Amino acid sequence: MVQTVSKIYVKEDQIDEFVEVFKGMIEPTKKEKGYIQYEMYQDEENPALLIVLEQWETKEDFDNHMKSEHLGRIAPKMTEFMTKESEFNLCYKIVS
Amino acid sequence: MVQTVSKIYVKEDQIDEFVEVFKGMIEPTKKEKGYIQYEMYQDEENPALLIVLEQWETKEDFDNHMKSEHLGRIAPKMTEFMTKESEFNLCYKIVS
Repeated sequence: MVQTVSKIYVKEDQIDEFVEVFKGMIEPTKKEKGYIQYEMYQDEENPALLIVLEQWETKEDFDNHMKSEHLGRIAPKMTEFMTKESEFNLCYKIVS
Repeated sequence: MVQTVSKIYVKEDQIDEFVEVFKGMIEPTKKEKGYIQYEMYQDEENPALLIVLEQWETKEDFDNHMKSEHLGRIAPKMTEFMTKESEFNLCYKIVS
């Protein structure tokens, strides 16, 4: 299983619009091979910071998701709302 | 439900020691009220970056965890292995 953590900083006056665009990712992503988790969280202190947590069965499943038609179509729209490059980490569970 | 994301940067030659100290948190934390998730992940690109994901039923449960005897005892030991202040976010799920 792979876990990803993405911190996305968006324009303060366009948070709702960004979230609406992101919602378009949910249904097609849930149908992908290896999907476990695909969720968006909002930071308590900074509402313009959105955190996406993903889980995939394998790294290959994640890589395929990154090449998916829906991500290719929706990601450019999401980028328009961002104030800087998002922070991305792919990681593996070592203690639970 | 509250989710927390902590990015912890540790000394490259003391990753294993840090993880061993962290493991002491698991059992007492799982017994706490409101515990849902308490896991450590290792970044793929930078093994000295450990990411802790926590879920608690309520913010109050998390606050009580922060005041727990075991965290008060173990956190100072973990701090010794860090190369800089950890990055912490508490957030709420808005899309899933």
